[in-house]
Amino acid sequence: MSVLASQDSSLSRRLEADLAQVRRLFAQELESDLDCVNDLAGHAQRYHGKMLRPMLVLMTAMAVQPQGDTTEQKHLIAAAVVEMVHMATLVHDDVLDDAAMRRRGATINQLHGNEAAVMLGDYLISHAYHLCSSLGSPEISRMIAHATNTVCEGELLQLANRHNLELDEPTYFTIITRKTASLCGACCRVAAELSGCKQNVSDALYGYGETLGIAFQVIDDVLDLTGDPQTVGKTLGQDLVKGKLTLPLIHALATCGGAGGVELAGLLKSQGEAGLSEAKAGAGAGRVREILAGGRSLDYAREKAASLIGRAKSDLMDNLEDTPARAYLLGLAETVVERRL
Amino acid sequence: MSVLASQDSSLSRRLEADLAQVRRLFAQELESDLDCVNDLAGHAQRYHGKMLRPMLVLMTAMAVQPQGDTTEQKHLIAAAVVEMVHMATLVHDDVLDDAAMRRRGATINQLHGNEAAVMLGDYLISHAYHLCSSLGSPEISRMIAHATNTVCEGELLQLANRHNLELDEPTYFTIITRKTASLCGACCRVAAELSGCKQNVSDALYGYGETLGIAFQVIDDVLDLTGDPQTVGKTLGQDLVKGKLTLPLIHALATCGGAGGVELAGLLKSQGEAGLSEAKAGAGAGRVREILAGGRSLDYAREKAASLIGRAKSDLMDNLEDTPARAYLLGLAETVVERRL
Repeated sequence: MSVLASQDSSLSRRLEADLAQVRRLFAQELESDLDCVNDLAGHAQRYHGKMLRPMLVLMTAMAVQPQGDTTEQKHLIAAAVVEMVHMATLVHDDVLDDAAMRRRGATINQLHGNEAAVMLGDYLISHAYHLCSSLGSPEISRMIAHATNTVCEGELLQLANRHNLELDEPTYFTIITRKTASLCGACCRVAAELSGCKQNVSDALYGYGETLGIAFQVIDDVLDLTGDPQTVGKTLGQDLVKGKLTLPLIHALATCGGAGGVELAGLLKSQGEAGLSEAKAGAGAGRVREILAGGRSLDYAREKAASLIGRAKSDLMDNLEDTPARAYLLGLAETVVERRL
Repeated sequence: MSVLASQDSSLSRRLEADLAQVRRLFAQELESDLDCVNDLAGHAQRYHGKMLRPMLVLMTAMAVQPQGDTTEQKHLIAAAVVEMVHMATLVHDDVLDDAAMRRRGATINQLHGNEAAVMLGDYLISHAYHLCSSLGSPEISRMIAHATNTVCEGELLQLANRHNLELDEPTYFTIITRKTASLCGACCRVAAELSGCKQNVSDALYGYGETLGIAFQVIDDVLDLTGDPQTVGKTLGQDLVKGKLTLPLIHALATCGGAGGVELAGLLKSQGEAGLSEAKAGAGAGRVREILAGGRSLDYAREKAASLIGRAKSDLMDNLEDTPARAYLLGLAETVVERRL
């Protein structure tokens, strides 16, 4: 994360130490007396990536306590909770997407079958709530559960719109706001509430997290169309296979018109057909990428993400004092649109 | 439920009214602004069956308040929470079992695919925790989450032992205690704690619920081998197809010896083989049933369940005053071994 490398180094060291603690809490919570459970849960721990969501919790906590720049045990626990929720969604997402690769390794469903992946996801979500209840705050438990309710709604709306070539931008944004951004917003709100922030600050921080989450998903969807699986480290191109219309495709269908539009619609339709050979699917996806590369739709999506990030940064600058932690959060927002993986 | 029909009728009416309230709370909690979510959640509500778990919560609450025989809003909420947890496990179980029928209707996975079923299960479990946090008690939230942790462990242990012909009785009982009985125990403990019971009473009630749950699962497993799908109202015989060794089979393998034992082991092994035709699987399952019908293994399992129910009843009689609600709980325990569906 280039933007973040230049940030305050004592803050970065602090964050690194905190994230190591979060990983320990995470592993400790999942420990079982059953070997078969530990084996699977251990595999899931390879899924820790950038740990964006725990970072949001920890940095928000630091940013709202300008004097101390410190985090407390409750923030570490909350960070482990959101990471566990996120990992549960990854494990179930990979089942829904038939994905074979994540974090440069085989997925749980690929290694142990869909059944083990469904149950491991349940085990993770259950432990997330279990750990969360140790905070002793029904309000925080309710915020986390509200966020997961919303994530599921987003996923269900997305499922209901598979292969819907008429999916419009507002519905696309409803889907990604719920399935991805609501948890990012909750990360910031939970940290703010644990630190006793006023309602308006908590709301502004939720706004920052949510907007950042929307931008993150827009770029994730662009990468699914343009990225290299080896660089990104996970199965890509599944959005086409699974009939998920994302922002560049919605824009292209709405704007390219004429023969190009008809060809694109035809290609997207055929991607969703049962019994399509892998070779044909690959050729079709390649042609979709060519059409996108020749138009403005990928740039349109990237610009949308950049504009969202601008709004997320304003939310922070208007509501928090200028501290190293705030600067870190502003930098974090930029990495979301700069990322290639 | 014949045993229960003869019970105190004012208590039964009270329970019926409470269960209607629980169904309302359940439906209300799941309401969404998205039609596609309401459609799926509405379908899940057809899964309300005997509502054993809410009954355990409500009747325990009445049994520990001998003067009043009343339940409060908090008990109704807890009853809706455990029903929602249970329904989430049914929805995901049907995915794991490839089951096509439940409560005399098509399963969610059959109607809408595994992906929608995985996500609907997640939506249910998320709302269960959300509703639970409205009780304002981190201790109760933690008990529910602890129970769901344990349920997942049981399911994962069961998955790890699919097609394991050497599965022994202790491991079988560990599986069913965790996957089924822990939630039944939690129903009683949650009700006891909400009513401010002493630790020893709460422990005894947990014991009653857990032991009843173990017996329930033993009989459920017997019915999977012997029941009529039309009477029971769900897909049966899946334990054989999915390589789940249950108590009658464990007993038969351990006791029938000689040629019979070899034949049974061979049949069970072939049931798990990929690419087995439906006709061959059906013939194999039929022969397994014949072998079981000729031996003592089904009776062995039924007697085990009956003895467990005896223990569950003692737990109650030793620790609760003699009230109509206690009598109801004793009768409920008996229905578990008497049931044919």
